[in-house]
Amino acid sequence: MNLIYLDNNATTKVDPQVLDVMLPYLKDEYANPSSIYDFAKQSNHAVKEARGVIKNFFNAENEKEIIFTSCGSESANMAIRGVLNMNKNNRHVITTKVEHPCVLNLYQALEKEGYKVDYIGVNSNGELDLEQLECSINDDTAIVSIMYANNETGVIFPIEKISEIIKSKNKETKFFVDAVQVAGKIPIDVQAMGADLVGISGHKFHAPKGIGALYVNSKTILKPLIIGGHQERGRRAGTENVPYIVGMAKAAELAVDQLKFENTEVKRLRDKLESNILKNVYNARLNASIVNRVPNTTNIGFEYIEGELILLHLSDLGICASSGSACTSGSLEPSHVLRAMNVPFTAIHGSIRFSLSRYTTEQEIDYVCEKMPSIIDKLTNLSPFQDELAALKRLKN
Amino acid sequence: MNLIYLDNNATTKVDPQVLDVMLPYLKDEYANPSSIYDFAKQSNHAVKEARGVIKNFFNAENEKEIIFTSCGSESANMAIRGVLNMNKNNRHVITTKVEHPCVLNLYQALEKEGYKVDYIGVNSNGELDLEQLECSINDDTAIVSIMYANNETGVIFPIEKISEIIKSKNKETKFFVDAVQVAGKIPIDVQAMGADLVGISGHKFHAPKGIGALYVNSKTILKPLIIGGHQERGRRAGTENVPYIVGMAKAAELAVDQLKFENTEVKRLRDKLESNILKNVYNARLNASIVNRVPNTTNIGFEYIEGELILLHLSDLGICASSGSACTSGSLEPSHVLRAMNVPFTAIHGSIRFSLSRYTTEQEIDYVCEKMPSIIDKLTNLSPFQDELAALKRLKN
Repeated sequence: MNLIYLDNNATTKVDPQVLDVMLPYLKDEYANPSSIYDFAKQSNHAVKEARGVIKNFFNAENEKEIIFTSCGSESANMAIRGVLNMNKNNRHVITTKVEHPCVLNLYQALEKEGYKVDYIGVNSNGELDLEQLECSINDDTAIVSIMYANNETGVIFPIEKISEIIKSKNKETKFFVDAVQVAGKIPIDVQAMGADLVGISGHKFHAPKGIGALYVNSKTILKPLIIGGHQERGRRAGTENVPYIVGMAKAAELAVDQLKFENTEVKRLRDKLESNILKNVYNARLNASIVNRVPNTTNIGFEYIEGELILLHLSDLGICASSGSACTSGSLEPSHVLRAMNVPFTAIHGSIRFSLSRYTTEQEIDYVCEKMPSIIDKLTNLSPFQDELAALKRLKN
Repeated sequence: MNLIYLDNNATTKVDPQVLDVMLPYLKDEYANPSSIYDFAKQSNHAVKEARGVIKNFFNAENEKEIIFTSCGSESANMAIRGVLNMNKNNRHVITTKVEHPCVLNLYQALEKEGYKVDYIGVNSNGELDLEQLECSINDDTAIVSIMYANNETGVIFPIEKISEIIKSKNKETKFFVDAVQVAGKIPIDVQAMGADLVGISGHKFHAPKGIGALYVNSKTILKPLIIGGHQERGRRAGTENVPYIVGMAKAAELAVDQLKFENTEVKRLRDKLESNILKNVYNARLNASIVNRVPNTTNIGFEYIEGELILLHLSDLGICASSGSACTSGSLEPSHVLRAMNVPFTAIHGSIRFSLSRYTTEQEIDYVCEKMPSIIDKLTNLSPFQDELAALKRLKN
């Protein structure tokens, strides 16, 4: 049975070219980049070069603005805690109702520590309520943390506009953008974005799991999360993960090369999958604005059936998809993102995210298009909501 | 020119068997272990299995006591911050003057935050002052943090005795052991040690840089450092670094297999190198107790000459050694460890650490033994302290 991997927002396959550039540093070039002998020059140089590549990937001004981390969660924790711990006077923070669980859990911890947190809502298309954001910012607001695109729906938030709103209300408020879900899907330009801090995670764009980066502009001083050695200019201790740093830089280069492909071919396959299902399954509905989405993601609700059952049937055919973030898999709570969008109760439990990559093929999409209607049909027949389904069917025809 | 790598306390070569077990997870088995489809079963299972191996490596009671981290620095920060943040009432902490810079810098940051920190000293052999430790512990002591062995001298501290002292003075005080430098060199048995928290770092025992573990006994509750997803039972967020987790587990298995070799063959080569230099170089002196050391490390002071110059000459011959921890390389400050030992000013600037591994060969050691006297001789001739050197030579002969 072939694997059809449509869960690239959870994690991605390491690009073979990424593995190739990593291997020397997992074999003979094992020196600690901080060592002073000749043998360490190559690993030291490799980290420097990778930092330059990631600087360009962010369109940052200076390599000093790049900190390598171990993952997107560390980037977010370092950014938010780092800003708050530098300035203990301001106790108000703002985020959205649809952030990644990583950021939401951190904000819930901050609330317990006495911070006031405002959670900005979204409309039924998954678009942010910018008026609420504007009204929420005050003189006490230390940081605003907003994702670039939502991991479940793919909806892109207007970061430039958001940073204008923030800075016009309070110039001292720092702006952290969780860009984990857009890296490799749309260009990241920290200068145009007007963000102070931007986090990414390598394994979302074909580097391995266990490496990330944080952009911190030169005006922003952070209290480090991991204190120790002088690595990363004293902002993140720990011997550098040279193989993964080199690998993430290669993945970033490839991601830039593939941007056009992502926004034409991958998007075309995503659109094909989406329109096909919406056309052929009467109880399917799109959970998101159809515009302003990353090109690889679609989130479809199947009314009156259970998402986990759909996923199990797909898994039996070798098809990988998900019902939300992998970090909350196994929990029976419906997605906090879809709840914030007021997706009807009838569809929220049956919502599936498909996320494609440059490795997704037309044949794979055709196969999923072929199989989905019968899977849904089978589960629909087992649903206890037959009257409602019949009404829905009449409505659609 | 062949590489002679005698800086294994800075970092180690990844064992080819470690790389072999990692490769499937860098290639086809790329699923996020939290995903629920069949494809994720293998990566999920691999992490579980690795956790069992690391549990055994620590001789922990339960797999729940193991947290995977990104490095030794993260393990130490998580342990110390995690304990202090759970209990904000106790504001006294104890460490040693000779800890790794990672831990020392963290304690200096804690002092700035208002914590009272006691730094336990060592004698000229590098052995801890246990009386000072006993006198320092009081009702307010939240945590004691002591390394298992010193990274510069290799001196092993009597952890079982230390934990008895701590617990007899204050049962509530938590005990963190930084075991980074002993993993693979002596057995680690957290139960015999009586420690509450024990940290290790993979790249010190032939796993890659960028992976570590923290043992936390079941009686100790930590506030997480990286908050977010449910990974590591909610104690360390971030998608698991499956390849490195699997790799570190393999490295731990190999380390256990190699313990006897380490304490016979590697020790024999270390002793040969050490006795040879001490015999043939009149201005050489051993910086450490000759007993109670890890088997791979020797730290030798060369009086009246500059350590960095020795390292450069060694580097020209392809020999890698160091003058202290790689994390402080490039700083001109003499080693804080040797200062704490009251190593005379005349020798402290010319102190070199050689650290061997199971890959070190007899030929390599013979070559270093052959070359050292002439390097030291050449530098001694350039020293401005000719009168003092002549007096020293008369004394030795």
